[in-house]
Amino acid sequence: MTSKGFGDSYLAALTPQIRRIEQAADDILRQVGIRFEDSAETLEMWRCQGAEVKGDRVYLDGTQLRSVIRANAPASFGLLARDAAHDLRVGRDHPAIFAPVYGAPNVKLTGGQRLAGSRALYRDLVALADSHASITNTGQMICVMHDVPESERASSMAQAHLELSKKPFMGSVESPRAMAEVIAMTRAATDRTCTPPDWPADAARCQLLHLINSTPPLSYKANALHCLRAAAQGGEGCIVTSYMMLGATGPVTSAGALAQGYAECLAGMALAQLWQPGTPVVMGLFAAAFSMQHMQPIFGDPLTQAVQHYAVALARHLGVPVRGDGGVTNALTDDAQAGYEGGRSMFASLVSGSDFILHAAGWLEGGRCVSFDKFSREASALAQWQVPGALR
Amino acid sequence: MTSKGFGDSYLAALTPQIRRIEQAADDILRQVGIRFEDSAETLEMWRCQGAEVKGDRVYLDGTQLRSVIRANAPASFGLLARDAAHDLRVGRDHPAIFAPVYGAPNVKLTGGQRLAGSRALYRDLVALADSHASITNTGQMICVMHDVPESERASSMAQAHLELSKKPFMGSVESPRAMAEVIAMTRAATDRTCTPPDWPADAARCQLLHLINSTPPLSYKANALHCLRAAAQGGEGCIVTSYMMLGATGPVTSAGALAQGYAECLAGMALAQLWQPGTPVVMGLFAAAFSMQHMQPIFGDPLTQAVQHYAVALARHLGVPVRGDGGVTNALTDDAQAGYEGGRSMFASLVSGSDFILHAAGWLEGGRCVSFDKFSREASALAQWQVPGALR
Repeated sequence: MTSKGFGDSYLAALTPQIRRIEQAADDILRQVGIRFEDSAETLEMWRCQGAEVKGDRVYLDGTQLRSVIRANAPASFGLLARDAAHDLRVGRDHPAIFAPVYGAPNVKLTGGQRLAGSRALYRDLVALADSHASITNTGQMICVMHDVPESERASSMAQAHLELSKKPFMGSVESPRAMAEVIAMTRAATDRTCTPPDWPADAARCQLLHLINSTPPLSYKANALHCLRAAAQGGEGCIVTSYMMLGATGPVTSAGALAQGYAECLAGMALAQLWQPGTPVVMGLFAAAFSMQHMQPIFGDPLTQAVQHYAVALARHLGVPVRGDGGVTNALTDDAQAGYEGGRSMFASLVSGSDFILHAAGWLEGGRCVSFDKFSREASALAQWQVPGALR
Repeated sequence: MTSKGFGDSYLAALTPQIRRIEQAADDILRQVGIRFEDSAETLEMWRCQGAEVKGDRVYLDGTQLRSVIRANAPASFGLLARDAAHDLRVGRDHPAIFAPVYGAPNVKLTGGQRLAGSRALYRDLVALADSHASITNTGQMICVMHDVPESERASSMAQAHLELSKKPFMGSVESPRAMAEVIAMTRAATDRTCTPPDWPADAARCQLLHLINSTPPLSYKANALHCLRAAAQGGEGCIVTSYMMLGATGPVTSAGALAQGYAECLAGMALAQLWQPGTPVVMGLFAAAFSMQHMQPIFGDPLTQAVQHYAVALARHLGVPVRGDGGVTNALTDDAQAGYEGGRSMFASLVSGSDFILHAAGWLEGGRCVSFDKFSREASALAQWQVPGALR
């Protein structure tokens, strides 16, 4: 293979399907619209762009959104680290970036003991992420710090990343205030006067990526909208993700999910460009099957892979970097199910050519737990992909 | 995706790489040649074709071999079962076929007890393979029958397949005599006067596929050669496989392994057509990394995936069906390693679009053991790929 993931001619062959998804998304945007909840500033921005606004629902023109994104969002951008050796570039022509599980309330220790997340465990997990060369971004909220007051968690997490690693990490989306605090801490700790000499002089760059999720179906909550604006206007980047559960918060078919998720992503990524042209954005379109019987998502399912496959093609066609998901699984311990399901999700992200792979190490229990054992196993396995000649 | 695995335009984009592998294989065939050991009839056949023969080494023309294969080998063919409901078609436009692990000396029971293979265990394993809808071919030598005299094993295995399942299975390559016995038993047990009405009237067909392995590097042993001839002249099919260990029986690089393995496959598949034009052949090109430290192959490695990827492209370019390998792993029990490594190999075979996937269920301990638990887990997981919309 001559490029990461899909080659140009393969993408060209997918064009008819991609166009159909785009058209279906455009129909959704125009006829159903997207809700932007409790954010007068966002509604006003859309009004200024000529969109029809009814209550908090905005009817959008997909062609216009794509034009805004293509005209402004960088096709690739740099993530500056605390030292140049750990700088990253995000995009099609650069290696995939791997970040740990994000958002686990619980932690499973080697030996099997399961604890609520804490500040001490968080710091151990950041040190673990730092120790694995394959984990190139130490992420964010690897576990929840239950023993730290909520108002202090964002800074406490940032402190851990800044003290224990020189790799790039991710910003806080707890609130715009917390985000600003983490951005300020990161800039204060990072004394980088030069960008790497092998980067283009005009390369887009930032230090922190922020996970901005829509609330499917077809909605954004106020905090996500305000964080999106704060990140863009603060000169930092966003991973704009639609994270659907098929049959619950998204259509039950993968084709339908792609159309809905792409519509949500378009709206969020265009909004970032409207707040600040040139904002680095990564598109994330993730769909888990949903078990109606157990009322929970099913991670590591082949449906997810099909959606990931087309999500990459959609993002390539749009010209923005794309997120993948790593070892997601419903397994309760790091067993054969965890290996197979998590591996299946990771392979889909790797083979499709995703640029930024979240949940690449440690995910257990449908994301409710981070496992030290699984973290090390997955990080070690990722190193195998760096063998020359390996399919990647 | 519009077809199984690679689409036409993706394959077209790979053409330059495929041509380089073909050219390197042709250089090997012409300059180094292939040894055909202890088989005067094979050497005589090559002499009749105008090839230069020195001792048991034959110097071959790759272009000529490809011409023979393209002119005679079917692009797809049918496998007739004991009843029409289980008939299979092998080739690019048909679903992948899954067969169990092949050749395991030992058996691991649910609960963990590990036993030497036996006739009773073999029959249990055939029944298990029959019970899973995803396992569409019950294979061959799922375990070794240590308690049956060697001269009776082929017929005892065939008896198990014929009594306990109506699905197609694979033929014996213990010896040409054993092969003939199994072919005769299968034909006696299978009273199929009609081919399926939805098959082309002139569709190539057979009942049994036989696993004919070269002996890398660049050699075929007498028994493989005599079985190849017996299968072809008996009207049955062959999976002609080069099964290399990189750095031990093949070059250490995937590019080198592809050239050597393709050269071996070309010689074997062409020979089948020379013995009987139109013989159904499936091309298998498998390469495991080899640990110089532990002196054993490493299964489920990303290098294997890269080779599988190009093996499919080479076979598509040649116009023959292609073999993939399923859940191969070095794991000693069905743990996270087994799930991850085995899943990685299976995923490579599925995504590349392999037509016949061997070792699809039960493989453990680098192939030295078949596990009932892993068999069921893998067979169940394969059923997930049959969900509409799944990537396959």
